[in-house]
Amino acid sequence: MQDVFPPLSGLVLTFTDFGAQGPYLGQIEALIRARVPRAQLVDLLNNAPVCAPRQSAYLLAALLPYLPTRSIILAVVDPGVGSDRAALLVETGGFVLLGPDNGLMALAVRRFAPARVHRILWRPERLSTSFHGRDLFAPLAAAILAGEWPASQAMGWDEMVGADWPDELPEVIYIDHYGNAMTGLWATRLSPAAIITIGNFSLAYAETFSSVPPGSGFWYANSCGLVELAVNSGRADVQLGLRLGTEVRTASIGEMNCGSFSSAEA
Amino acid sequence: MQDVFPPLSGLVLTFTDFGAQGPYLGQIEALIRARVPRAQLVDLLNNAPVCAPRQSAYLLAALLPYLPTRSIILAVVDPGVGSDRAALLVETGGFVLLGPDNGLMALAVRRFAPARVHRILWRPERLSTSFHGRDLFAPLAAAILAGEWPASQAMGWDEMVGADWPDELPEVIYIDHYGNAMTGLWATRLSPAAIITIGNFSLAYAETFSSVPPGSGFWYANSCGLVELAVNSGRADVQLGLRLGTEVRTASIGEMNCGSFSSAEA
Amino acid sequence: MQDVFPPLSGLVLTFTDFGAQGPYLGQIEALIRARVPRAQLVDLLNNAPVCAPRQSAYLLAALLPYLPTRSIILAVVDPGVGSDRAALLVETGGFVLLGPDNGLMALAVRRFAPARVHRILWRPERLSTSFHGRDLFAPLAAAILAGEWPASQAMGWDEMVGADWPDELPEVIYIDHYGNAMTGLWATRLSPAAIITIGNFSLAYAETFSSVPPGSGFWYANSCGLVELAVNSGRADVQLGLRLGTEVRTASIGEMNCGSFSSAEA
Repeated sequence: MQDVFPPLSGLVLTFTDFGAQGPYLGQIEALIRARVPRAQLVDLLNNAPVCAPRQSAYLLAALLPYLPTRSIILAVVDPGVGSDRAALLVETGGFVLLGPDNGLMALAVRRFAPARVHRILWRPERLSTSFHGRDLFAPLAAAILAGEWPASQAMGWDEMVGADWPDELPEVIYIDHYGNAMTGLWATRLSPAAIITIGNFSLAYAETFSSVPPGSGFWYANSCGLVELAVNSGRADVQLGLRLGTEVRTASIGEMNCGSFSSAEA
Repeated sequence: MQDVFPPLSGLVLTFTDFGAQGPYLGQIEALIRARVPRAQLVDLLNNAPVCAPRQSAYLLAALLPYLPTRSIILAVVDPGVGSDRAALLVETGGFVLLGPDNGLMALAVRRFAPARVHRILWRPERLSTSFHGRDLFAPLAAAILAGEWPASQAMGWDEMVGADWPDELPEVIYIDHYGNAMTGLWATRLSPAAIITIGNFSLAYAETFSSVPPGSGFWYANSCGLVELAVNSGRADVQLGLRLGTEVRTASIGEMNCGSFSSAEA
Repeated sequence: MQDVFPPLSGLVLTFTDFGAQGPYLGQIEALIRARVPRAQLVDLLNNAPVCAPRQSAYLLAALLPYLPTRSIILAVVDPGVGSDRAALLVETGGFVLLGPDNGLMALAVRRFAPARVHRILWRPERLSTSFHGRDLFAPLAAAILAGEWPASQAMGWDEMVGADWPDELPEVIYIDHYGNAMTGLWATRLSPAAIITIGNFSLAYAETFSSVPPGSGFWYANSCGLVELAVNSGRADVQLGLRLGTEVRTASIGEMNCGSFSSAEA
């Protein structure tokens, strides 16, 4: 077995598109806990955009710094189940990440470089075509927690799918329970004077929800550092017509030739 | 450190409007468990009416007697994130409650009086404007479980927001997975002869679902003691046109001058 | 106390129609964990078809072989809360199952026969009419984990509701987060040459999603061995007009006189 540094805490955080209802996450949790009773499963996110590992990659990279290190991150969002993409084990930033080689972990690796990336060679005796989360990744997580390093092969992180993706994704990457729309843009790279335009809407910056009137749209630096589009006391997705993949443009006030900055009008 | 009576069990029950999907509850759970491995997080309710701490206050107060004492209740429903409302720590009824001073805990305090109420003075080094659940309340819960009492200041429970709210709220305060509508009325204060009217509908009492015909509406004493409006084998929200905040009136049969008591007709 | 064979692990898997939002599952979890701290609750499925224990019985039986033995399965899907149906404790296949006698566990028992079936005589002091999951089954699960066998009476498994149900149910029994439709048919009993017809659609077999073009419908053996209807990169429920209870017919290619096998056209 290879050194795992640092030693793992037993926390396994799942980042998936499996949904909150069932029956997928529960099977994974049951199998890991049956094998490793000290394991603590935490459902970090279960409604990642279905089949969209690219968008999710930017969200996962943004969330990681707010998660406890020494955790396993089990990240499965899959457009190609049953295809022959590789399974990866990545050591970076104090985490062990497990998931398919489809770009989902690519931005996390870049953010926390250096990373050690391993192509997993181990395969279970029983591997369904449609549920690698249960058949492949859950036993891998359990084995790693139990101190067993799976058969694997080192690879360069620049060989991962997504290694060539841009640092930011100028589109809506996630819509949360409140209808707020997260983008793949880093808020720290924007001036508070920046204007975000989506379709016919232009949104100015506000520090908090309560600093704009109810019903007004704005952008702000969300709790994981991304540019998020929101409406005070309203749903930005509905009022601004936002969907996953909606294109987001940035400009400074000087570049703008129209008004309506902090309002949700067309 | 101040005495916490009784000693806490390690259970942290969350009552929030964060949704079941992510990525908010998972971050809170991960942080608490990383700091206090014996902590056991339980998601009691994650779809409290968004930004409506008043309605949720009545539901939380009704649920508490059915929860295990010696638990921490982490209650976050927030219309004013980023505003300057205080954070509270309340000891009452064998529970420690943590949450914002926006009324959410006011009815619980009144029900279980006496209560010790503390305004929390401690603040974390990194406090986002939009996610106090993670940045403020999660570390507080972890610290308390670890035996560290946060810097705080005693206050009277009559100084809490909501201290002047009525004992009952005659409206729909929650709609559950089945479409049943909970109200802020105590069933024990009503006679089985009482009639509940909402809009054009009048509902008589029934002890159980199976005691009325399929498709019929009725009210009953729900599992936490509230008046709940339901339709046997149907969705009361859809069939009776109920929404959060729908006004509910009570009358006795003698006061009524129209019929259709146990039916879902307009 | 009777012998429980094998000894239980502490895992309690819930299979319910309680929803992911609250406040039902959380109350059950809190009560069990407060009584038995080593208990580990896992939410296996919370959106079983409401009031449809028959459909859920086929799904539960299919899932069991993929779950860790030595677990308690707490299965509550209830069309008749408040009626006088019995509560059962079933020992079979290395599991202890708890739930109402409404057929929900009937197919599991048949699949894993022999089974020991017990009618539970114990009743709690406080039993609400609408939440037996919390008031009856949660304390039963906690007691069993604590080594206390509840007062009960042996009965024949052929006396259970559902004992006469067929081995397969030719209809849609569950629609998952992706819009895939599980049926009550065993995939192993069908040849890959079989055609599934639902309404005007005819679906041929495919091993994996990626083996048919995007937008095409097909059937496949899902991760728990059932025939599942799906559309690559699409939602089968929407595109094929599938709902719970939609009838499913099987035929071999020779019997078919029309085409459009792997396509989602009408």
